[in-house]
Amino acid sequence: MHPDGAPRVGMVGGGQLARMSAAPAAALGIDLRVLAVDPQESAAQVIHDVVLGRHDDLAALKRLAEGCAVVTFDHEHVPPAHLEQLEAMGVAVRPGPSALFHAQDKVHMRQALTDIGVPCPRWRVIEAPDHAAAFAEEVGWPFVLKTSRGGYDGKGVWVVEDEARAAEVLAIPLPPGAQWLAEERIEFVQELSAQVARSPHGQAVAYPVVRTVQANGICAEVVAPAPGLPGERAVEAQELALRIARDLHVTGMLAVELFDDGSRLFVNELAMRPHNSGHWTIEGARTSQFENHLRAVLDLPLGSPAPVAPWAVMVNILGGDVPDLYSAYRHVLARDPGIKVHLYGKQVRPGRKVGHVTVVGENLDDLLARGHHAADYFMGVIDE
Amino acid sequence: MHPDGAPRVGMVGGGQLARMSAAPAAALGIDLRVLAVDPQESAAQVIHDVVLGRHDDLAALKRLAEGCAVVTFDHEHVPPAHLEQLEAMGVAVRPGPSALFHAQDKVHMRQALTDIGVPCPRWRVIEAPDHAAAFAEEVGWPFVLKTSRGGYDGKGVWVVEDEARAAEVLAIPLPPGAQWLAEERIEFVQELSAQVARSPHGQAVAYPVVRTVQANGICAEVVAPAPGLPGERAVEAQELALRIARDLHVTGMLAVELFDDGSRLFVNELAMRPHNSGHWTIEGARTSQFENHLRAVLDLPLGSPAPVAPWAVMVNILGGDVPDLYSAYRHVLARDPGIKVHLYGKQVRPGRKVGHVTVVGENLDDLLARGHHAADYFMGVIDE
Repeated sequence: MHPDGAPRVGMVGGGQLARMSAAPAAALGIDLRVLAVDPQESAAQVIHDVVLGRHDDLAALKRLAEGCAVVTFDHEHVPPAHLEQLEAMGVAVRPGPSALFHAQDKVHMRQALTDIGVPCPRWRVIEAPDHAAAFAEEVGWPFVLKTSRGGYDGKGVWVVEDEARAAEVLAIPLPPGAQWLAEERIEFVQELSAQVARSPHGQAVAYPVVRTVQANGICAEVVAPAPGLPGERAVEAQELALRIARDLHVTGMLAVELFDDGSRLFVNELAMRPHNSGHWTIEGARTSQFENHLRAVLDLPLGSPAPVAPWAVMVNILGGDVPDLYSAYRHVLARDPGIKVHLYGKQVRPGRKVGHVTVVGENLDDLLARGHHAADYFMGVIDE
Repeated sequence: MHPDGAPRVGMVGGGQLARMSAAPAAALGIDLRVLAVDPQESAAQVIHDVVLGRHDDLAALKRLAEGCAVVTFDHEHVPPAHLEQLEAMGVAVRPGPSALFHAQDKVHMRQALTDIGVPCPRWRVIEAPDHAAAFAEEVGWPFVLKTSRGGYDGKGVWVVEDEARAAEVLAIPLPPGAQWLAEERIEFVQELSAQVARSPHGQAVAYPVVRTVQANGICAEVVAPAPGLPGERAVEAQELALRIARDLHVTGMLAVELFDDGSRLFVNELAMRPHNSGHWTIEGARTSQFENHLRAVLDLPLGSPAPVAPWAVMVNILGGDVPDLYSAYRHVLARDPGIKVHLYGKQVRPGRKVGHVTVVGENLDDLLARGHHAADYFMGVIDE
């Protein structure tokens, strides 16, 4: 504990979400400790208090938890049994293992959402090609096949257009404990994300609903608020997210990814941590998702999620051909004195999320052009 | 150097200015290393790369500089001869020792400003009580006596009302290398601060001019922009700061503290680093002073200093009777979801700067009330 009485928060995982949590932790005077596998991981480069170890190593988790008021997460991959053991030792784990399990296992998530009446694509657990054909008779080809565990950023997700392709996918070995989840493919007009923060004593705040654009299963662009989304649809999405957070006993940030088919919303995925769709909040909201995650897991009063400008645009920087991201700075920063760049300190590999840019302001077309220009320049897609 | 090509910046000093530099360094993907005397210092608590040692120990400075693209400062107390030795070794020191010396020695500063025609209070180097009496014949009693070196936050500054009091002050032992600087006491209507960032290749940006309120020689409150300041006076202050930065070859942030007597401006002090009068820029400007200091010393294009809201108010939290600052969070954060709190991780001691709060928005009276309420609650001045 700090000389001024502030607590320590332990975060499992050393990725960019932990890295971006460092700024609000320092501002609030909260000690942030991360569990990282490698001292070169994104968060481990910048945070003072780093415990080295794996997220599936109970001894490492115990070293992280030592002296922490609460343990929380940069990713969802910690085995629930380990978290239950930490809880049994008296460590506060937020979100708790039973809540987090909904973000770890998509079948469990689908069942829980269905039980509480949240609209989802039609879904079924299947095991064999003939199950796929039977499911297709109900929802039509193509549909989506997912591993219930272990997928992220488009990995572990396939769109299958016929029984032969379904058979190929079903022949792929499943991760440990996973099942095959078949889901109706929603013909969406846009994808949305609704983020809320919820604290153990039940306070919750809802951020503006944003539009996300994915490319190859990876988030490419976020616009806050979602352009053209009718007010009642936005409120519906916020209410869904608040209901899910309450009924699933989420603490911390919850991101609810949604399909909008033009008349209805369907829940696609859940994330119980800060989320790529909320990076815009660093500059675009009064309180960032990273700050509210810390405040929520510490059961502190939550900060205002109000936007600070009419529009915010975030564009991800994916690894391209240019290993030296820093070499882009002269051009990008000179061209646009208002752009905010976030690089994650990661080795550039093709398609890897290595940073993002955010611009906030009044003219959406201008912001989109500026955000994409900067990201494209970092990625080597353009050179002027 | 990072895998993505980003450089390392070494900062001398482990105080709150270094601590608040960590967030933009991490966002820009720049390695920030600090030289701290103690692992419990404000910045050393949160920054990964800490070199332990004193700012007046050349060997420690060399350890800091190892592998750094540039060395810069959280405070102005490094002996110039040490910095010249670092430069002789090929280390980029920004601001350079000859520029920085203006912020280290107030007589040197006064002479340089007088030489370039910048308006200052009338001043004179004095040594004895009869010199004081002669100076008073010119400027009147009371006037100000300062040690030319080693003062900060009101330390090393006296207002003397007669020859007897001047004699008492002049009998106080001077810090090494210091002289007594006598200055006319300006009857100001307000104090202002004009901040600029300047890079080695000569780009400069000027922040909005702010009003500062001091109590017992310590900054208590900052309002951005300075309320009621005529536009032409604001521009005059910005032009003064830009001229000083250029003529004194400053690189990085420069704060010019000014007296406004209602019709004229007089330079009071210079600081060549991020400054308390610019903390509001974290939430209140497109680019914070901490980010622009890093960008300037790295000779990267500077970020926009434009404000993001009509008003920003910053109020310092000084140590009071309550050692546990964290205990105030429930009240302060619940009462005002829009307030931004920055605690520095410092042991509470009476009168010590231990944090600050910032609020931005449209109604200045409301912002002032909110900022002072929060700070007063942290300081134990009020309990509801």
